[in-house]
Amino acid sequence: MGALDEGHFCAELENGVGLGCPELGFEEEPETIAIEDAVKVLLHGLGEDVNREGLVKTPLRVAKALREGTRGYKQRVKDIVQGALFPEAGLDNAVGQAGGSGGLVVVRELDLFSYCESCLLPFQVKCHVGYVPSGQRVLGLSKLSRVADVFAKRLQEPKRLADEVCMALHHGIKPAGVAVLLQCLHIHFPNLESVFLKPNHKGWLKSLVCSGSGVFENENAESWTDFLSLLKCRGTNVDRTSTRHSNEQSWCPSQSYSCAKTSSKIEPVNQAMVTGVTSILRSLGEDPLRKELLGTPARFVKWLMNFQNTNLERKLNGFAFSRVNAVETDKEASGKEKQIQSELELPFWSQCEHHLLPFHGVVHIGYMGAEGLDPIGKSLLQSVVHFYGFKLQVQERITRQIAETVTSFLGGDVIVVVEADHTCMISRGIEKVGSSTATIAVLGRYATDSVARAMFLQNLPRPTACEE
Amino acid sequence: MGALDEGHFCAELENGVGLGCPELGFEEEPETIAIEDAVKVLLHGLGEDVNREGLVKTPLRVAKALREGTRGYKQRVKDIVQGALFPEAGLDNAVGQAGGSGGLVVVRELDLFSYCESCLLPFQVKCHVGYVPSGQRVLGLSKLSRVADVFAKRLQEPKRLADEVCMALHHGIKPAGVAVLLQCLHIHFPNLESVFLKPNHKGWLKSLVCSGSGVFENENAESWTDFLSLLKCRGTNVDRTSTRHSNEQSWCPSQSYSCAKTSSKIEPVNQAMVTGVTSILRSLGEDPLRKELLGTPARFVKWLMNFQNTNLERKLNGFAFSRVNAVETDKEASGKEKQIQSELELPFWSQCEHHLLPFHGVVHIGYMGAEGLDPIGKSLLQSVVHFYGFKLQVQERITRQIAETVTSFLGGDVIVVVEADHTCMISRGIEKVGSSTATIAVLGRYATDSVARAMFLQNLPRPTACEE
Repeated sequence: MGALDEGHFCAELENGVGLGCPELGFEEEPETIAIEDAVKVLLHGLGEDVNREGLVKTPLRVAKALREGTRGYKQRVKDIVQGALFPEAGLDNAVGQAGGSGGLVVVRELDLFSYCESCLLPFQVKCHVGYVPSGQRVLGLSKLSRVADVFAKRLQEPKRLADEVCMALHHGIKPAGVAVLLQCLHIHFPNLESVFLKPNHKGWLKSLVCSGSGVFENENAESWTDFLSLLKCRGTNVDRTSTRHSNEQSWCPSQSYSCAKTSSKIEPVNQAMVTGVTSILRSLGEDPLRKELLGTPARFVKWLMNFQNTNLERKLNGFAFSRVNAVETDKEASGKEKQIQSELELPFWSQCEHHLLPFHGVVHIGYMGAEGLDPIGKSLLQSVVHFYGFKLQVQERITRQIAETVTSFLGGDVIVVVEADHTCMISRGIEKVGSSTATIAVLGRYATDSVARAMFLQNLPRPTACEE
Repeated sequence: MGALDEGHFCAELENGVGLGCPELGFEEEPETIAIEDAVKVLLHGLGEDVNREGLVKTPLRVAKALREGTRGYKQRVKDIVQGALFPEAGLDNAVGQAGGSGGLVVVRELDLFSYCESCLLPFQVKCHVGYVPSGQRVLGLSKLSRVADVFAKRLQEPKRLADEVCMALHHGIKPAGVAVLLQCLHIHFPNLESVFLKPNHKGWLKSLVCSGSGVFENENAESWTDFLSLLKCRGTNVDRTSTRHSNEQSWCPSQSYSCAKTSSKIEPVNQAMVTGVTSILRSLGEDPLRKELLGTPARFVKWLMNFQNTNLERKLNGFAFSRVNAVETDKEASGKEKQIQSELELPFWSQCEHHLLPFHGVVHIGYMGAEGLDPIGKSLLQSVVHFYGFKLQVQERITRQIAETVTSFLGGDVIVVVEADHTCMISRGIEKVGSSTATIAVLGRYATDSVARAMFLQNLPRPTACEE
């Protein structure tokens, strides 16, 4: 069953490198089994039933995603570059001469993703890579993308990723120089504690890094001006002075969790989870004792515990639902005519229970009322959204749960739209970077009155022009 | 050598379906060898030397790309959907009730690509797919993408693609209804003859198609209004009245080549090419006698012959270079001071010699002169661009060739920038949809004067806001 219905893992990678023992199926390989065991420990630590139907294959899915997402450890640049170097007459060492060299070649806007070595979450990379050919050799264009991907598919940090891609291409092509510029985007989840305090929390951290060799080694070289001009005419307007030059200061938000402090008060169950994550790192072929990875398991576990099954029940139960009836009663007493009211773009943060990967976005809620909500009502809605968000979830369920819950204080006519970006859709070999998912739940009048539904849906916010 | 340096083909696909005989390597499989043989016939028909270094592995590359790009013939939806259907309490047949059903689920903006059955060129697909769950079952979100991809990875036509995805999901999920909306983009190469006559030739043809089942079967159903509203708030503003409802009128520009007429005067070498393409169709698992494929080999060959090696030499030689010196001489005689002159956004069309796939874009040319070019000079530049475009090419070479050629009438100080989208970067498993490649060649003063270079590069056109 498993191999067929969940999709058989492609053990033989495109560049001729097997991921493990060729005799064993992916699911029987010791690395896979070790990761699955560790994921079960994590689920247990979250207070989940590992045998519940939505979770029963999660360990295998996570193992598959992680091994696929770090396959770069087993790939060799030489295998990719060899055989894709083509002779081009008239390309010699005279940089920039058409009669001699072909000048700069730049491939812009390659969408990649990588795994943050500091917190194990995937991050997005917009990669721009160029080189100045030399020695009568050019590289097949798609190989620039493939080589970059070899290093992206590892546990990474933006600056090191740029350096490794640059050096690999430099040694592979032996050009006059290589330039790599990466625009990286790291999801920034709020903590369960901070999310209520900082409603305007920004969901992304950016990092701009570059790396150069040969004629690009000097960061003030004219070649960089040419390279950046060619990015600019594609709409990528970057200021190199804002690039990070070392990986000393980490960009990962998990670094600020100050695990040193928390590790002293780590609960026993969490210690088992930390050990589990350490074993995952080892199964991926990493050295858990590598300096940058030392704190990673503890940071990952601390982050994951945001989604502990019972966490918010305790915190919110007393507060939220005691205020509910007051709001509703006030409204009915006012006697005004009810019309469509909307609360739009309530942020939410959640964790996909199928892949243990984050998804996040906004919730729009419509109801019928005489007037809009007061600030207390609004913060109540937001609390409900966080209540269902900070759990292992699926988007369909959270949409329905929010609808069913808010009906107790917004009345029986409710429409809820959830719009989300799923990390599991951009990583894991799906790599549908621009995709986004919308779900609707409707109750009462919204279920039958298509005009009311259409009026609410028409008022949903549109993306502003050229959003990043 | 071959298996390692070009990348070993992944014969075992992700969904557990082998592409051919499991005992044979990809390169030894009879289907691969048959396609390679046919590609050699095509190259020969183009007047190319199949043993020249840039082409020697082209047959294998084409075979790999085509078999990978049509792997959907061997994939089964059942294998993908099974095991990814999750129970969600509260989802029953009562459409649209949160307490009953979870309402509509929409995944928006999935980037796919497919192969046009009419001309064998890849076309891009922006896929939006939704369904209304029923029977307490939801499908893992990424499976919507995977199922759509099974049908995209075949020789297709937009309307059939939409119908097949819709039906497959309907049978797989057994929901209350499925909606599929595809925005398709087909490259539209000009003919070698027409390119000079229609300088404003549009490079793309669009097709908007949709397909619905269950609650979406009636195209005026309220469910469609909900679905389209959710696309709209993501910026996809489509008017369903503009969708095509049948596949009777073909969207493919090759249909207008009127092959019936040309087939009577087909040359013997072309007939061998047509037979070769027919054999390729068979090797991919298609039936060349299927109605829609009957004219495809002849259309593909007719299109490919645009890139015949010696075609343009004959047509242009007399015209272009006899006028060259006149232009230059006029300039020098005027005695005015030379400054940077630009001719921007000259369209070009070419064919990648590594993959036999089109690439196209614009050429920007800078030189030093007393004044800009007259119309004859401009059309001369455009002729040079087409001259080098309509061939089997690589972007680095065409950039250098244009620079070296125009120097004879624009003077010794020349800079050429070529910006191109490569079909081989969006198909073939690379699938870097947004990527684009820029190359520079510089001669004379532009090679040494970085200020002149920067001035020219700064004036390159930027993308206008929110370009499609």
